[in-house]
Amino acid sequence: MADALKIGIAGLGTVGASLAKILVERRDMLQTTCGRPIEIAAVTARSKGRDRGVDLSAAEWFDDPVALAREARIDVFVELMGGAGDPAHAAVKAALSRGVHVVTANKALLAAHGVELAGIAEENGCILNYEAAVAGGIPVIKALRESLTGNTISRVYGIMNGTCNYILTKMEKEGLSFEACLKEAQRLGYAEADPAFDIEGNDTAHKLSILTTLAFGTKISADDIYLEGITNISIDDIRAAADLGYRIKLLGVAQKTDTGVEQRVHPTMVPLDSVIAQVDGVTNAVAIESDILGELLMVGPGAGGNATASAVLGDIADIAKSRPGAQTVPALGRPAASLAPYKRAQIRKHHGGYFIRLSVEDRTGVFASIAKHMAENGISLESIVQRAQSTTESTDPKTIILVTHATMEDSVRKAVGSVKGEGYLVGEPQVIRIERPKTA
Amino acid sequence: MADALKIGIAGLGTVGASLAKILVERRDMLQTTCGRPIEIAAVTARSKGRDRGVDLSAAEWFDDPVALAREARIDVFVELMGGAGDPAHAAVKAALSRGVHVVTANKALLAAHGVELAGIAEENGCILNYEAAVAGGIPVIKALRESLTGNTISRVYGIMNGTCNYILTKMEKEGLSFEACLKEAQRLGYAEADPAFDIEGNDTAHKLSILTTLAFGTKISADDIYLEGITNISIDDIRAAADLGYRIKLLGVAQKTDTGVEQRVHPTMVPLDSVIAQVDGVTNAVAIESDILGELLMVGPGAGGNATASAVLGDIADIAKSRPGAQTVPALGRPAASLAPYKRAQIRKHHGGYFIRLSVEDRTGVFASIAKHMAENGISLESIVQRAQSTTESTDPKTIILVTHATMEDSVRKAVGSVKGEGYLVGEPQVIRIERPKTA
Repeated sequence: MADALKIGIAGLGTVGASLAKILVERRDMLQTTCGRPIEIAAVTARSKGRDRGVDLSAAEWFDDPVALAREARIDVFVELMGGAGDPAHAAVKAALSRGVHVVTANKALLAAHGVELAGIAEENGCILNYEAAVAGGIPVIKALRESLTGNTISRVYGIMNGTCNYILTKMEKEGLSFEACLKEAQRLGYAEADPAFDIEGNDTAHKLSILTTLAFGTKISADDIYLEGITNISIDDIRAAADLGYRIKLLGVAQKTDTGVEQRVHPTMVPLDSVIAQVDGVTNAVAIESDILGELLMVGPGAGGNATASAVLGDIADIAKSRPGAQTVPALGRPAASLAPYKRAQIRKHHGGYFIRLSVEDRTGVFASIAKHMAENGISLESIVQRAQSTTESTDPKTIILVTHATMEDSVRKAVGSVKGEGYLVGEPQVIRIERPKTA
Repeated sequence: MADALKIGIAGLGTVGASLAKILVERRDMLQTTCGRPIEIAAVTARSKGRDRGVDLSAAEWFDDPVALAREARIDVFVELMGGAGDPAHAAVKAALSRGVHVVTANKALLAAHGVELAGIAEENGCILNYEAAVAGGIPVIKALRESLTGNTISRVYGIMNGTCNYILTKMEKEGLSFEACLKEAQRLGYAEADPAFDIEGNDTAHKLSILTTLAFGTKISADDIYLEGITNISIDDIRAAADLGYRIKLLGVAQKTDTGVEQRVHPTMVPLDSVIAQVDGVTNAVAIESDILGELLMVGPGAGGNATASAVLGDIADIAKSRPGAQTVPALGRPAASLAPYKRAQIRKHHGGYFIRLSVEDRTGVFASIAKHMAENGISLESIVQRAQSTTESTDPKTIILVTHATMEDSVRKAVGSVKGEGYLVGEPQVIRIERPKTA
């Protein structure tokens, strides 16, 4: 039997406490599967006294996470504090710099400093594992970093924010407004009091930036992401989508194109009969399209103390199973120094289908005018639906919905701009991109 | 840069040739991600002369796979010959016995000899990887063996045979008979000339037996599987299922129960709005339910030369990334000696919902009689549908469809037996088990 793997846990919130409990309660089971015991040797958290439902008195207590990372006698530093800055950043650097492996669930830290940290890990022969940072319990880091070795990836996309998916699901299933569903999400603890980070797409963007690097071998570039949240999605959009055979999901998409790598987070129409369209509520899903394997889709819990703790535990177990000093997988899939600069593809060059919903004054010639502007911009239409509003008075605006065949975003923007210039639109036009799985 | 990882490939059929091509063409890319080159040092196949689209002249040729496994100067033996017996069995044993790691895609070999081989691997400090053996390109072995470490699994189930799923999908989508769809599958190369092994469920059973061991820590027991194929499924069943909100899939299910571990392969009703119900055609899917992580579903290509080669390559890369002599993960998730005997749960004790389709003579009292027999066996019904056959002549048989709430299989068998005894059934009753995902 090898020596115990000694770990230090920084952060004993929901995930940290859940992890500590599992490590204590399942010690024997883990020892059998990992071939050695896993021992909590050191801990740090904001409050020392709080009861976390697990006896950690045998672990050395540190008031300062950086001190723990620097001084504790540990093999693995488990960072569960969160936040892109210090103390998480300083602590992870300190641990890696002295040859201590790191497991973290901190997507913000990796989005901001991932390349730097991966480099330090490599220099010091350490493992840097972060399965829990993207899509919670879904083993997408492992799939990209290990299973798909040798594959060339063409696209990675997914539902990576449970809050948004819960809201969109509830809007559709119960016919409620965005605001009502957001309130319900807050009541259930699925959304923060300040929900902006989730519903504006920033959380998804952080996660996407990590997947982009693993998929395409480019440096993490979390600021170079086209971002649209879901606050603008109305129940009318959701209904119109359903009528046309689509469902609206907030997707993060990274895709190789001729002009660079697209990173975009926006509400997206996916075909109703696709597998990803069935992913409801707080559940996450990530799809990876590659040239040898084909399409792989993984669906699972994207958040929650236990699911996150499970991913962290898998990362710790991987370290326990490897011998100290073993050659390590580069944290970002290839050596940090070999990562290419990220070249941002312009969103105006995006090529795909579009859903366009227009509210127009009910007068003669409007339909023809819209069709003319589409044609002039080279946009061919898959379907056109004209619908009367709920009342029948003839002066009420009419709704016109267009679904385009694959076209350039620039053309769509120009066509919609021209239509706006005609003066018959009531309110703002709604434009939503369509994303199709390679295989339905 | 570490030394090259030297591999020997036994079997250069579709998968072997595809793997060899990838290893040669992507040598540089693999060297970057794995930290060392991967080199084909030895090969063996049935025919030496055949052109496989890749130059293997630098590799040492062996006529005998066992000789290759025993003598070639290699770090990894890649077994792609197939078959439970020799030479695959003897060759894998020979390789492991002298400390050579093994990667195999051979489900039949593992189903028959997995525990023995895992034990030999452990004794010799070798890695035995077999991601491609179950559900092709879906990384389910990695998920169970690594990501879910520390979790207690309650159920694993999935669509693991592309032939069956193709046939069932085509029957539903095009309203064709089983026989017509099987012929089409054979024409497209999705089914063998002798399709029995696929359509009777044996192929799924082999794969399931491996997942059962990883999930529940019991010895592989591929003969202890309740087996029902899809030959008995009619277009009427598929239509009736759809009417009631279900779709029929051939599932392999392993589940812990009070009396043991159920292993069953049979046509199964899954809710139409579940994610797994949308998995169409030759695509595979595996769901894992566990106590910490929750439910994880993975969908991807279950067969094909490239998808299988990708999984084999992932396994080889994992070995390349680990240092020779590193502590290895036990092949079956825990040490072979610690696997518990498999205790088979009796199918008669299975607890779940049932779909029952009866064709009955159109006479008074039949409906009441059926309801009585159900009630007498303690079966409560979720829905009952009575339907006239296509013609309207009153002497034609009527179809009655029952969907039960969760009940014991024994009760269903008794009730259906009693109904049969009444003499008003036309033809055999159809009974199909219902399986519900934990979520959605």
